[in-house]
Amino acid sequence: MLSNNSKFNLVQVKGTWVRQTERCQSAQGKLSDAKIYENKSDHGVCWTVVSPIVFTYRVIQSKNILDPKNDTLLWGHVGEEEEELKGTINNSKPVKRFVVIDETVNQLYGSQLIQYFESREVVYRMLPLPTTEENKCLELVTKILEEIHQFGIDRRSEPIIAIGGGVCLDVVGLAASLYRRRTPYIKMALMKHHGLFELLEAEGRKLLLSKLQSCESDSGVELEDSATASTRIAIETMLEELAPNLWEDDLDRLVDFGHLISPELEMTVLPTLLHGEAVNIDMSFMVYVAHQRGLLTADEKYRIIQCMLGLELPVWHQECTLPLVQKSLNERLKHSAGSLRMPLPTGLGRAEIFHDMIGDNVLCQAYQKWTAELASSGNK
Amino acid sequence: MLSNNSKFNLVQVKGTWVRQTERCQSAQGKLSDAKIYENKSDHGVCWTVVSPIVFTYRVIQSKNILDPKNDTLLWGHVGEEEEELKGTINNSKPVKRFVVIDETVNQLYGSQLIQYFESREVVYRMLPLPTTEENKCLELVTKILEEIHQFGIDRRSEPIIAIGGGVCLDVVGLAASLYRRRTPYIKMALMKHHGLFELLEAEGRKLLLSKLQSCESDSGVELEDSATASTRIAIETMLEELAPNLWEDDLDRLVDFGHLISPELEMTVLPTLLHGEAVNIDMSFMVYVAHQRGLLTADEKYRIIQCMLGLELPVWHQECTLPLVQKSLNERLKHSAGSLRMPLPTGLGRAEIFHDMIGDNVLCQAYQKWTAELASSGNK
Repeated sequence: MLSNNSKFNLVQVKGTWVRQTERCQSAQGKLSDAKIYENKSDHGVCWTVVSPIVFTYRVIQSKNILDPKNDTLLWGHVGEEEEELKGTINNSKPVKRFVVIDETVNQLYGSQLIQYFESREVVYRMLPLPTTEENKCLELVTKILEEIHQFGIDRRSEPIIAIGGGVCLDVVGLAASLYRRRTPYIKMALMKHHGLFELLEAEGRKLLLSKLQSCESDSGVELEDSATASTRIAIETMLEELAPNLWEDDLDRLVDFGHLISPELEMTVLPTLLHGEAVNIDMSFMVYVAHQRGLLTADEKYRIIQCMLGLELPVWHQECTLPLVQKSLNERLKHSAGSLRMPLPTGLGRAEIFHDMIGDNVLCQAYQKWTAELASSGNK
Repeated sequence: MLSNNSKFNLVQVKGTWVRQTERCQSAQGKLSDAKIYENKSDHGVCWTVVSPIVFTYRVIQSKNILDPKNDTLLWGHVGEEEEELKGTINNSKPVKRFVVIDETVNQLYGSQLIQYFESREVVYRMLPLPTTEENKCLELVTKILEEIHQFGIDRRSEPIIAIGGGVCLDVVGLAASLYRRRTPYIKMALMKHHGLFELLEAEGRKLLLSKLQSCESDSGVELEDSATASTRIAIETMLEELAPNLWEDDLDRLVDFGHLISPELEMTVLPTLLHGEAVNIDMSFMVYVAHQRGLLTADEKYRIIQCMLGLELPVWHQECTLPLVQKSLNERLKHSAGSLRMPLPTGLGRAEIFHDMIGDNVLCQAYQKWTAELASSGNK
């Protein structure tokens, strides 16, 4: 069979891109990072296109975010190198922001938010939505899309603002990605307010657990209170895990800790458990599995569970039955390319991914001890 | 104000990623391409994450795609370097494919497709859908998602196959991107069949028009008939424009030629015009605009219009009124970051992007000539 391979660079000439082989570089112009590989045979032609792309995103932890003097909410998406954008846009036309806000957060902070926008002379539209797990559906996404369309935004300079928990960010993120193909949005979580911080803590603690060590050694910044510090460390460790694995091509993810049994448990008991509470029950059980496998000492197991109880997090639930645990692990196996990839604690502030299936024996014994020791004390 | 900037690399140690400054490289391990930039100030902390990603995709032009001896339909997504995948997957479990097919294509080729899958012993589910512009909606996407969920696929090894025109590929593409976050699919267009080729030609010609020159000089391959050749050139020129600009960050796109007025026109006259026909009417009008601006000679204008008529494509439409043209250009201006970015032909096989607004004068004169010369001959 005749076969013919070529590799092409791409050069921009007068606004149009042309292919060029390495040895025949006739046209001069901007060279793209993208390459096209061509394979011609008797059967036909196969082109393989390789296009590198760089994702850049920004995470900001800011004090007093609703203080009209604070720029973060309006301009947090703009980096230092694009600072001049603020000036030009400000001068030529009013700043416009579309805001999706969780109903509960709106009850607590809605009027402060309106004051913020009014005093900054922002043209805004606030859309409060019931963004809970039970209400999470495509209709919410459609609703947001319709409202954005009606309000009208320039997807290049007027990002959508989402204020709320995980479900709120999920539905707004999907809506933004669908609206004119790719509209930026900033996710916002209100910090330094006790009410919302309690919610955040439920998520943040799973990171504290696996990073307790670095928390203790990383206390160089003075005058930072423990709430700010724990949130900062939660963000830092989360970014460490997410940045190198943007598309989750690597399935071995420590951030999955607490997310093996909890989805099934949440679906079973909705809406009695918060997401973070279900995650904690999952982690509590995994601590027992780790102990049963000899990864944790009895003392380490005790200290982790006490730490959870100290945070007033539930460590046991009657609906988290052995069949539910087994079903969850089988589901995981199905969608995780044939390996369990289970993150388990291996000490205080240490964890590893385990690939082998857990024996029914170990699972059963871990479950019995977990129930015997925590069924009475664990439930809040 | 105290400000403190750090740049971190990311190193994988025992399954977990840790941040590391350039000068303090304590841990050894796999280094990620991703970087985290941290800026600490009195106001808070700002992290900027920069994650490079490489997109790779494959386009295949293949003869006799429904011949059971042809691998393209089943394994076209697998590159040469992953060839061994075919063997391993084949041996351990049956090959499974979910197929979304346009209703009309299904009437023409459905039975041949079933024969292909049967003879290859594929476990398949075929979902014929009315994928026309009028039916394009989120409900189609939801329908596909429900059927995929019921059929069950492994998103890592069992890509979704879409067979049909642009709308079919749009809805399947969106469904695939939503299903378990990112499921691969291969787009398939049946080549070498006269009926479907006529449809393709309507799209392909706009590429031929802007590349007529390279078409004439690129006739080195022997024994390739003109249908195959024109499709191949259409694919090549399309890839040239798309590969360096995967996310359309660069708004100056020659491939927009024919797509300024046609969306508005299509919406007005649905379903009497095919997408390609509306695109051609748009291009025909733009040829007159280019002539009016002195970009094309009268002879060039004549040859392009004759070429379109020779392909039996409509070059004029009574619903393509001057107000519709003006409305389209204003819409374009709104969503194109304040510049018209209009691709116009500047000769046979040559085009450029123009940024300035077209004067009402030029537009009006071009429209009058266009109507005077083509109203009678143009409509089919």
